[in-house]
Amino acid sequence: MEIKPYLEEQRRLVEEHLARFMLPAEDDFARLIEAMRYSLFVGGKRVRPILCLAAARAVAGDSSPDKQVMPVACAMECIHTYSLIHDDLPAMDNDDLRRGKPTNHKVFGEAEAILAGDGLLTYAFELLSDPAVSDLPADVRLRICHTIARAAGPLGMVGGQSLDMANEGREIPYELLRTIHRSKTGALITAAVEAGGIAAGADRDQLADLTTYGNAIGLAFQIVDDLLNVESTTEQLGKTAGSDADAGKATYPALFGLEKSRTMAREAVATAIGALESFGDSAEPLRALATYIVERKR
Amino acid sequence: MEIKPYLEEQRRLVEEHLARFMLPAEDDFARLIEAMRYSLFVGGKRVRPILCLAAARAVAGDSSPDKQVMPVACAMECIHTYSLIHDDLPAMDNDDLRRGKPTNHKVFGEAEAILAGDGLLTYAFELLSDPAVSDLPADVRLRICHTIARAAGPLGMVGGQSLDMANEGREIPYELLRTIHRSKTGALITAAVEAGGIAAGADRDQLADLTTYGNAIGLAFQIVDDLLNVESTTEQLGKTAGSDADAGKATYPALFGLEKSRTMAREAVATAIGALESFGDSAEPLRALATYIVERKR
Repeated sequence: MEIKPYLEEQRRLVEEHLARFMLPAEDDFARLIEAMRYSLFVGGKRVRPILCLAAARAVAGDSSPDKQVMPVACAMECIHTYSLIHDDLPAMDNDDLRRGKPTNHKVFGEAEAILAGDGLLTYAFELLSDPAVSDLPADVRLRICHTIARAAGPLGMVGGQSLDMANEGREIPYELLRTIHRSKTGALITAAVEAGGIAAGADRDQLADLTTYGNAIGLAFQIVDDLLNVESTTEQLGKTAGSDADAGKATYPALFGLEKSRTMAREAVATAIGALESFGDSAEPLRALATYIVERKR
Repeated sequence: MEIKPYLEEQRRLVEEHLARFMLPAEDDFARLIEAMRYSLFVGGKRVRPILCLAAARAVAGDSSPDKQVMPVACAMECIHTYSLIHDDLPAMDNDDLRRGKPTNHKVFGEAEAILAGDGLLTYAFELLSDPAVSDLPADVRLRICHTIARAAGPLGMVGGQSLDMANEGREIPYELLRTIHRSKTGALITAAVEAGGIAAGADRDQLADLTTYGNAIGLAFQIVDDLLNVESTTEQLGKTAGSDADAGKATYPALFGLEKSRTMAREAVATAIGALESFGDSAEPLRALATYIVERKR
């Protein structure tokens, strides 16, 4: 399948729904909501929501409950965006540029950026539990809620960011690097795929395959992120290039070199595609997404 | 009823369950979890969880599903604690002291404090949706989730904190002060009461009464907080006294003077108790809590 037009169409669909689900920046809380909207709509590839929708399609084909999956997909993007806002803060990575634009705290100040992140994180769970936006059975929605909370929480994304900060500038063993990536970026990517699967009624085996797929593309995604940070310019990337090396971060290229890192990324994609064997044509978007992840330029 | 021993017993019960539900600080994410635990277990009156349990009791009496309400009560305390950690940050209120101890960022540094807050907020939703900790029906749990998320989110607590920061040092009309308090502190207190009621199967009328009660004690709580900030010493308070005036914050004493503020707090408590008329003896703890709120010394 043609990945570029598919991604473009899906991205537009996700952004339409984000615009629909997101609060308008008016009345009493206009400034906070403006800060939340700034980072949410400043751009981005919308990879997690697209993965979520594609996983639901893989399970249910044309009868995928797209309308019901959409709030879940949008909640994933809210959580991803919050994590970027907080990661960019002066106390964290202190980044000035994100998606080619000034970071949230550069525009709205540090206090408002912290609150915009808090607001997006909380709003994600508001959306996941809102009775007005989905007809999925309550037990399915609760399972999705739990899957995403666990992946984003202290044993997932937040834990990974803490571990990453604690080990900045240190030589760390590969095992710890894997733990950092699995938690910091892998967990939420896997949760996006799992949540889509759960929404579409995946059985136990299908869900296990989706988990394997998610873990493998999460790994590939991280390796390619590391490679792009070394090989791209800031302009191509839309965020500060070379910042990992400057911060003395442990990365795949730093540990294994460029060539071996590229091979590892390709192997992870092969694992991901292999995990989809039991799915038919309906998993074509997931397969194409896996390939896209290693070939992307930003 | 005797409020002191009741509060002491409830506080101990909540802390036992917090200890049970909270992650242990070990393995990979030990440092983050240690930071989360530090603020969660540094003390505190546990007002929100106690209100949550008392509301369930008011509705269901001795057949209140205490065991099922406990994770909800503990999630409320996680969210409250996260909000304190983030409010104390240098970019926000820049407070060094909380519950008589150094604030989170003073002990763990700013980055870890931001993450500890993020971790506690996310963990609250993990707890609310965890299939292992509650037998409440999924639709009831989802409703509780939504009630709490909305109260803690951009139109609730986070919005209120943003509005409060934006108006620091300004003369603001009373209407805006009410909006700030309703959202910043009132919403979560009301949600604690509502969540307990929902867990215990409150009908529509009971829930409306609990909402009225929650809003009224939220108001009383805030006025008394403002009064204590003026009238107490830092030692009595366990946090920096006089900080509101120093920061030029709009407060009840600043707007209405001490005497009128005290009268307003007492009137709010009367409203709260009045809203419980349809409940019998089972609401005694809620009534006693309302009275306690205006009489407390810290």
